[in-house]
Amino acid sequence: MKKLTHLNEEGRAKMVDVSEKPETTRTAIAHSSIEVSQQLYEQITNNQMKKGDVLAVAQVAGIMAAKKTWDIIPMCHPIPLKGIDLSFNWLQEDNRWILNIQSTVKTKGHTGVEMEALTAASVAALTVYDMCKAVDKGLIIGKTYLIEKTGGTSGRDYRR
Amino acid sequence: MKKLTHLNEEGRAKMVDVSEKPETTRTAIAHSSIEVSQQLYEQITNNQMKKGDVLAVAQVAGIMAAKKTWDIIPMCHPIPLKGIDLSFNWLQEDNRWILNIQSTVKTKGHTGVEMEALTAASVAALTVYDMCKAVDKGLIIGKTYLIEKTGGTSGRDYRR
Amino acid sequence: MKKLTHLNEEGRAKMVDVSEKPETTRTAIAHSSIEVSQQLYEQITNNQMKKGDVLAVAQVAGIMAAKKTWDIIPMCHPIPLKGIDLSFNWLQEDNRWILNIQSTVKTKGHTGVEMEALTAASVAALTVYDMCKAVDKGLIIGKTYLIEKTGGTSGRDYRR
Amino acid sequence: MKKLTHLNEEGRAKMVDVSEKPETTRTAIAHSSIEVSQQLYEQITNNQMKKGDVLAVAQVAGIMAAKKTWDIIPMCHPIPLKGIDLSFNWLQEDNRWILNIQSTVKTKGHTGVEMEALTAASVAALTVYDMCKAVDKGLIIGKTYLIEKTGGTSGRDYRR
Amino acid sequence: MKKLTHLNEEGRAKMVDVSEKPETTRTAIAHSSIEVSQQLYEQITNNQMKKGDVLAVAQVAGIMAAKKTWDIIPMCHPIPLKGIDLSFNWLQEDNRWILNIQSTVKTKGHTGVEMEALTAASVAALTVYDMCKAVDKGLIIGKTYLIEKTGGTSGRDYRR
Amino acid sequence: MKKLTHLNEEGRAKMVDVSEKPETTRTAIAHSSIEVSQQLYEQITNNQMKKGDVLAVAQVAGIMAAKKTWDIIPMCHPIPLKGIDLSFNWLQEDNRWILNIQSTVKTKGHTGVEMEALTAASVAALTVYDMCKAVDKGLIIGKTYLIEKTGGTSGRDYRR
Repeated sequence: MKKLTHLNEEGRAKMVDVSEKPETTRTAIAHSSIEVSQQLYEQITNNQMKKGDVLAVAQVAGIMAAKKTWDIIPMCHPIPLKGIDLSFNWLQEDNRWILNIQSTVKTKGHTGVEMEALTAASVAALTVYDMCKAVDKGLIIGKTYLIEKTGGTSGRDYRR
Repeated sequence: MKKLTHLNEEGRAKMVDVSEKPETTRTAIAHSSIEVSQQLYEQITNNQMKKGDVLAVAQVAGIMAAKKTWDIIPMCHPIPLKGIDLSFNWLQEDNRWILNIQSTVKTKGHTGVEMEALTAASVAALTVYDMCKAVDKGLIIGKTYLIEKTGGTSGRDYRR
Repeated sequence: MKKLTHLNEEGRAKMVDVSEKPETTRTAIAHSSIEVSQQLYEQITNNQMKKGDVLAVAQVAGIMAAKKTWDIIPMCHPIPLKGIDLSFNWLQEDNRWILNIQSTVKTKGHTGVEMEALTAASVAALTVYDMCKAVDKGLIIGKTYLIEKTGGTSGRDYRR
Repeated sequence: MKKLTHLNEEGRAKMVDVSEKPETTRTAIAHSSIEVSQQLYEQITNNQMKKGDVLAVAQVAGIMAAKKTWDIIPMCHPIPLKGIDLSFNWLQEDNRWILNIQSTVKTKGHTGVEMEALTAASVAALTVYDMCKAVDKGLIIGKTYLIEKTGGTSGRDYRR
Repeated sequence: MKKLTHLNEEGRAKMVDVSEKPETTRTAIAHSSIEVSQQLYEQITNNQMKKGDVLAVAQVAGIMAAKKTWDIIPMCHPIPLKGIDLSFNWLQEDNRWILNIQSTVKTKGHTGVEMEALTAASVAALTVYDMCKAVDKGLIIGKTYLIEKTGGTSGRDYRR
Repeated sequence: MKKLTHLNEEGRAKMVDVSEKPETTRTAIAHSSIEVSQQLYEQITNNQMKKGDVLAVAQVAGIMAAKKTWDIIPMCHPIPLKGIDLSFNWLQEDNRWILNIQSTVKTKGHTGVEMEALTAASVAALTVYDMCKAVDKGLIIGKTYLIEKTGGTSGRDYRR
């Protein structure tokens, strides 16, 4: 099984061997966003959307998605997550509103939780999209990226 | 069950009743992207990444994710998908490369497949991220949005 | 495949053949409940629980569980659900409070949705339990049963 | 990430951070039940039900459900379960029969397995319901609760 | 979306478009097997295995797996299955026993259910393996193949 | 919970208690295969199949299936997999070609990963079948078995 960390002969995909990496406490923080109109902003914050309380559902969706990252992203390792949180804040830009989404994931494990944090943020944004698309068909999910990562062993902590 | 299409009393979430909407052929096309360095571009296109053939895995990931959209996005209806495809193209910008991801989803059903197309594109981008993050910790997933939607009954077709 | 609706020779389990049953609009309404103390009632309704807004999470959990009933209950058929709703109400009994949970599920399909409604109500109750168990280890989930069922073809509608 | 164990600003849901809790051997025992008629009791115990051997299927359903509790109950942590068992016994009351269901779950982990035991017992009861509902539409699932919990660190063991 | 039934430009995978195919009643029957020793045969048929009643569990496993074929086999379409059955028979060969496994799957849909039947048979065989491997580490799952397929439109029925 | 490693009274299934077994590094290697015609061999190796690159998809399918073995095989324990790889090779026999599939799985856990390796190999074979069945309805998946197992504590390593 030595070859598990190298390219297999065909150059095909594998879930690389992380059994030699130490089990450490690791965290990751990721960011996504979605831009909405003034009208939609008011409907969301006044809880007037037909599908229900948008941010409450996005919160649950992001947390549940983090837990199944290993089943969504093919080469991700299954990792026992110890804590997941999401927070939202609104930023006004002219007559548009940006909903910023920040996810924080924590584990004690052999590999990092960047993908879990990114998946949580992406799925929260997609859920907001779903609950608002009847009102606005032109919604745009903003850039999605890692903000911070701690506890890794192969390199330094990362902070954008 | 008349109330199912309106706000329940608490204003909480529901999966709205679509049983009265006609079953039509519907399609949706969505877009996402991810930006990588010249070095990473070369490693991906030469199939030299440690985790394997990046685009082949992202292709499968996006298709499989489209099929479980109903299990990822809480208020999405389960819809019998009839066809799913993803395509990639590379765009050079100065010394950076943008990988454009386009997903196409088709159904015969009571409601649209925007979320399935958006989920496919997002998960394909997240998968590229996962397979490249050992090389570059600062990857950014670009904006994600709907390009086209046909076959709906409550409104006209949509095209960005 | 005639035998599919009868006992197989060993008397073992099967998912019975429903392909001959007509596709009709069907609904089911189910009930569950959970009993909490005065203190817990106040913490829930004032949104002071450490794990977050109890009923908002239970709402989402019940809806998502209805969609995966076929993956939880072994001999259930996969059915394309068209609408799912949950509602809660509080009933005071002496110094205890009963949270009544009612789920409504609708489909157009070859078989009924009793199990989807019952699963939604049960999982909503379990979720309330989970979010409150740090405060009260002696919580009791009440009786769970079907209230109403319409649209079946093999018998009359049912109403408790 | 200090805030992870407290209310986030919006009071929304989170999966609380358990990484500081020690990994101990933990068990939980839960109870549910379902009441059936004399006729149904005889059909079940003589293995004459159309959908197959009721208790054998309920046994498997409860065990499999325990393993996916983290995917059903939104704020539950994924925990590596080490053992799961279910047992049934029948109790006669006048001309009715009560099927008592007891589930036992064991782990070595950072948090308890009450929800896993409760989910196993609930799903076993729901499965019995599913396999018997063609015969009796008025089945009632009885109260569901925790019987015993050991190995926790934040409090004493619990026994009803 | 015309291109969906042809090779995409990169020759990568897709879930081909079946929306034009008519919805017909379709069945498939598949076969697998597993070979065990005389001792193991006796333990299984006398229900003396430590993990429980081997065939009862394999029966449930095969049926549940058929329902999630679309989530296991990447390019399979999600299909609303209408009936699933499995049957076993024992064949003695010298001092060895062959457990033959036959699965039957039925749908009304746009595409066939070969993969569902094959997955059911394979998973039933794997489950027998799992429940017996503590006794015999050298178990062999036999050849797995399609026996019969009816209801297709693009070609004749198939029978081995 | 002492009884967890013995037969429960009814002889029904259980997930046996492995909490007393030490956590060790464990590996398993499994084998499956599928036989195809000369024509199909050429189409696969020239990437001319309508559903896409057969082996690339089978690779991903096998890896993803290994991760959900606990959800497919009822009495399997959930195990945190640390590495998964699959390799293929072609063997010519007269005018037929055998595609040999070998899966390697590694964990640090309380129990072995035979089932994960076997499931990976089986699902890879089923995926090849799915992607080729439009061309050849008579495909046969070959014998599936364990090749090697290391790291167990209850017995010696195993090698076929």
